[in-house]
Amino acid sequence: MVELGNIHSPADIKQLNKKELTALCAQLRQTMIDIVSANGGHLASNLGVVELTVALHREFTTPHDALVWDVGHQCYAHKLLTDRYADFGTLRRQGGVSGFPKPSESEHDSFITGHSSTSISAANGIAKAKALTGDDGYTVAIIGDGALTGGLAYEGLSNAGRSDDRLIIILNDNKMSISQNVGFVSRYLTHLRTKVRYVRFKQHLTSALIHIPLIGKPLNRLVHNWKKKMKRSLFAHTSFFENMGFHYMGPVDGHDLGDLMQALRAAKSVDRPVVLHVATVKGKGYAFAEKNPDTYHGISHFDSRAGAVATSSPTFSSTFGETMCRLAAEDDRIVAITAAMIKGTCLEPFAEQYPTRFFDTGIAEEHAVTFASGMGAGGLLPVFAVYSSFLQRSYDQLINDTSIMNNHIVLAIDRAGVVPEDGETHQGIYDVAMLRAIPHTTIYAPSTFRELERHLRQALYDTDGIAAVRYPKGGENPLLADYEPSYQPYTLTEGKDKKLLLVTYGRTYGEVLAARRRLQQNGCYPAVLKLNRIHPVEDEVIAKMAEYDCVLFFEEVSRAGGVGESVGNRLAQADYSGHYAVGAIDVTLGACTTEQGLQAVGLDAAGIAAFIREHTDKFACPAQEEDHGGE
Amino acid sequence: MVELGNIHSPADIKQLNKKELTALCAQLRQTMIDIVSANGGHLASNLGVVELTVALHREFTTPHDALVWDVGHQCYAHKLLTDRYADFGTLRRQGGVSGFPKPSESEHDSFITGHSSTSISAANGIAKAKALTGDDGYTVAIIGDGALTGGLAYEGLSNAGRSDDRLIIILNDNKMSISQNVGFVSRYLTHLRTKVRYVRFKQHLTSALIHIPLIGKPLNRLVHNWKKKMKRSLFAHTSFFENMGFHYMGPVDGHDLGDLMQALRAAKSVDRPVVLHVATVKGKGYAFAEKNPDTYHGISHFDSRAGAVATSSPTFSSTFGETMCRLAAEDDRIVAITAAMIKGTCLEPFAEQYPTRFFDTGIAEEHAVTFASGMGAGGLLPVFAVYSSFLQRSYDQLINDTSIMNNHIVLAIDRAGVVPEDGETHQGIYDVAMLRAIPHTTIYAPSTFRELERHLRQALYDTDGIAAVRYPKGGENPLLADYEPSYQPYTLTEGKDKKLLLVTYGRTYGEVLAARRRLQQNGCYPAVLKLNRIHPVEDEVIAKMAEYDCVLFFEEVSRAGGVGESVGNRLAQADYSGHYAVGAIDVTLGACTTEQGLQAVGLDAAGIAAFIREHTDKFACPAQEEDHGGE
Repeated sequence: MVELGNIHSPADIKQLNKKELTALCAQLRQTMIDIVSANGGHLASNLGVVELTVALHREFTTPHDALVWDVGHQCYAHKLLTDRYADFGTLRRQGGVSGFPKPSESEHDSFITGHSSTSISAANGIAKAKALTGDDGYTVAIIGDGALTGGLAYEGLSNAGRSDDRLIIILNDNKMSISQNVGFVSRYLTHLRTKVRYVRFKQHLTSALIHIPLIGKPLNRLVHNWKKKMKRSLFAHTSFFENMGFHYMGPVDGHDLGDLMQALRAAKSVDRPVVLHVATVKGKGYAFAEKNPDTYHGISHFDSRAGAVATSSPTFSSTFGETMCRLAAEDDRIVAITAAMIKGTCLEPFAEQYPTRFFDTGIAEEHAVTFASGMGAGGLLPVFAVYSSFLQRSYDQLINDTSIMNNHIVLAIDRAGVVPEDGETHQGIYDVAMLRAIPHTTIYAPSTFRELERHLRQALYDTDGIAAVRYPKGGENPLLADYEPSYQPYTLTEGKDKKLLLVTYGRTYGEVLAARRRLQQNGCYPAVLKLNRIHPVEDEVIAKMAEYDCVLFFEEVSRAGGVGESVGNRLAQADYSGHYAVGAIDVTLGACTTEQGLQAVGLDAAGIAAFIREHTDKFACPAQEEDHGGE
Repeated sequence: MVELGNIHSPADIKQLNKKELTALCAQLRQTMIDIVSANGGHLASNLGVVELTVALHREFTTPHDALVWDVGHQCYAHKLLTDRYADFGTLRRQGGVSGFPKPSESEHDSFITGHSSTSISAANGIAKAKALTGDDGYTVAIIGDGALTGGLAYEGLSNAGRSDDRLIIILNDNKMSISQNVGFVSRYLTHLRTKVRYVRFKQHLTSALIHIPLIGKPLNRLVHNWKKKMKRSLFAHTSFFENMGFHYMGPVDGHDLGDLMQALRAAKSVDRPVVLHVATVKGKGYAFAEKNPDTYHGISHFDSRAGAVATSSPTFSSTFGETMCRLAAEDDRIVAITAAMIKGTCLEPFAEQYPTRFFDTGIAEEHAVTFASGMGAGGLLPVFAVYSSFLQRSYDQLINDTSIMNNHIVLAIDRAGVVPEDGETHQGIYDVAMLRAIPHTTIYAPSTFRELERHLRQALYDTDGIAAVRYPKGGENPLLADYEPSYQPYTLTEGKDKKLLLVTYGRTYGEVLAARRRLQQNGCYPAVLKLNRIHPVEDEVIAKMAEYDCVLFFEEVSRAGGVGESVGNRLAQADYSGHYAVGAIDVTLGACTTEQGLQAVGLDAAGIAAFIREHTDKFACPAQEEDHGGE
């Protein structure tokens, strides 16, 4: 019998008969359930593409043919079939198998697709490179219907459809984006699905007929005309893809291996770009996931036999969601927007309580910001809840559609800083650099749940233009349980003297306080300045910092463009003659837990303490040499 | 007879009869031709929407109803009709009437739309705000077919179509984007246009019938059914907009005032969002512009009777275009990409010589970068030529689809720095802040044409990851005629001593040298360090700067996130004890000439000299007090 562990490359799959392929599918499913229930990860979408992945590796040969998965988290079966089975227990762990395709991990991965809707454009480029360099391989993009809600997918379709390269777009239609699918894509695909039953592609029929003597040609013509007629009636509503320049095929049952393989062969034989519409069931083969695909979209570890149980320990996200409901009750101008992240941003209660004031735009961050700005211009108080890394998609909309008019919108930036498990593409470390460069922008960074509420109120009522509140994934630091939020732009804890000042904000405040505790054991009592509003920073705050011999700044964002860089520059301009250094993020950070990530970038308590020691050895704080006893 | 000068508001237009409206249209055209031929500006698109604008102001009442123009440069007739006729001679001049809608200029302008494809999202937001605040006004977005190629427009349609607000999208179909239209939109709209002749909307017909005794109702039903049938056959191919959730109407002759007004009234009577398809002729009514709409899209001043004559003085853009042709002849891996800016980026010769290696993506900067990255991954050498302000749309694609994989692409960033005439939305001042924060990025900033070629070669062959070459609109500074490009990361001109160092790059180098000349008359001989590669900057360069008592940095970009901020921070971290200051851009800069813009931000020779004097008075250079004679 076939063993998943013995499959190392597409060549191995091509040896298997249909029964073995079916058995392989079952093993893939079991492996995924076992490992995702242990490690957490994306389950429902991966269960849905098992047969599709097997069929793809049966009909195509990576890396000669390129597969581009969109969003990339549906690549588990692909990874298991391309020599990563043995290591799959390390999925989404530090140094382990990435939860997304990664060319540096395997030659079978062609492109990192951590953000949605990119595959068609990327595949268009890869296919074009193949065509121009005389490589006859195919390029296949596999894109979910959710990803199709993004404008980039539309741009990709419109451009890729004009090429005549060996390009196949597989539309993996599982009837939902991360949240329930919305708008055009959902409506249009429903249309396609209800119009026809599943289609089978008997491609060699007519070419075989033609060899029958005498009646061959007329019969062939007859069949051909009949096919054309059938096609016209079946595909009357395929004009969207056809107008994009594609040959549309489908829908095909995405769990029927035979149909899938035939359809893929048929798609290969078309001499222009093809859209192959495949209907799959999210969570297929695991009853819990089929019933609640949203719950099993991205999930933490769970008991695979009992199913996942909702946990309820409070997080910054859940605090945001609850606060929004309270604020909305007080002020009916408040509206909330999400881009397909209703669960992740904890806006479900808001959506239930205020359905006419809640907007899920689908995976459309550009639209979300311009739409919010329009609502702001019209007198509402829009709050766009978005993950830091996805806000990168709205950069121009923030500048041109919001900042220039000084329209007032609030950004609730979730997953700011180090983000666990998802790796490079989901780290929330660019938002500060991005927003700081935009005029009329204010950024708050709460360290505690109570401060999050305080900052949200400030963002709504004490600020104009773009007001951002950024907070990390996860809970608050117990060290900060008694921290009293302040309306002041900063909170200063005095030190023993004016030798050393530690400056920080947000989650890092807790780590800095913990580092300070460690140092106190050596008699080092630095002052700590916590920035509440991290941008703009007033001259008064810079002047306060300049009173110290040594200023060390810690922040959980990209060094270039961060607040620390700006503060350093302003100290230089104030002719500051002390010592200054910044602990920030310089690396592209792969999968890890939050703790591992903070450690890797030196922004956990131990790393911060080490950084302080390194700099104070040379300069300011007496630290190790003296011993002043406890605090 | 009606006089354009007497029209101050929509109320005045509503007083006019049809003959007067027609006369008004002629006056609008003549005024536009007169003023654009004197001031430069967007002509062809504005000539195309004269009747549409008059009809809009006849049927709607701004500001109660909101108009959102996309791209905003087609707003001239709108501005002339809403009390800006008297000032229209100042169009696109410093302190004058903006070439784009601007709420701060008039209550009749609802949203700044300097970048394309934003109107549907903005209108969706404005309409939603009206609905939620109980305002019964309509919101009308007028979007060109070119703007419809942008992904944001697709996201906007998909979301706005789900609303039930008073929203009308007018598709101004003039059969071209800025360059020739491409892809889906062009194909699909051609389809709609060829399918039917112009449609007229006799809205009151059936409601009148119903009052005829006895036969009224059956006749009404008959007419109703006939209309439904007609509509089905006419609009069989309107499923794109219908699937988006809109009621589709059209196409209507965009130069027939009567038809337009009827169609607008019909659109108002539909109780869900409407797409009204209007066919217009770009350049309508001015023979030169009708014949060559591309030439008259955005144009400098010209002789209105003789028509525009192509000028041929070399610019950074033309140098780029010529260099690309030379480079492509040497290396067939080189491919070029533009996002609907083939003329502006001077890629027309490349497109003619290398048609299979040239790609115009339409207004789709997101796609352009991801597509380029795919080609880079496939072994090609893609060069994406893009205006600085439009590159803002590709921020996430640069990070997630390129940088994280360290794929090699070249960005030719045109219109970097101060950009004349177009105002706030077109200033190229954020690209440096944007790119500096992204890992695996190198930025070059040539000061001369020859250096542009040098830097392009370095970007192609000496760099991996994202390699950007940024250059301004316009020509090179004659002061730099003899400047010899260097492969070194910086070029240092020693001063008299180590008291004062001026650091700069790109176009500003010429201004700094000119400022230095002025100061030399007072015996001040500062050193000048020109950065060639402006990012990353090596420690060695920072150490070189730190040798001077005073370092002054000048750059034509946003201060926050600029190179100057980074250098200041690094000087602080190197315990630099001298004086440091940065001259950069802090303001949102409106319309101006390049010279006026540089003056306004203090980055022309005079402003730089003043800045130097201000700082050297206090610190380093002897300057005014002493006189050391000539150099």
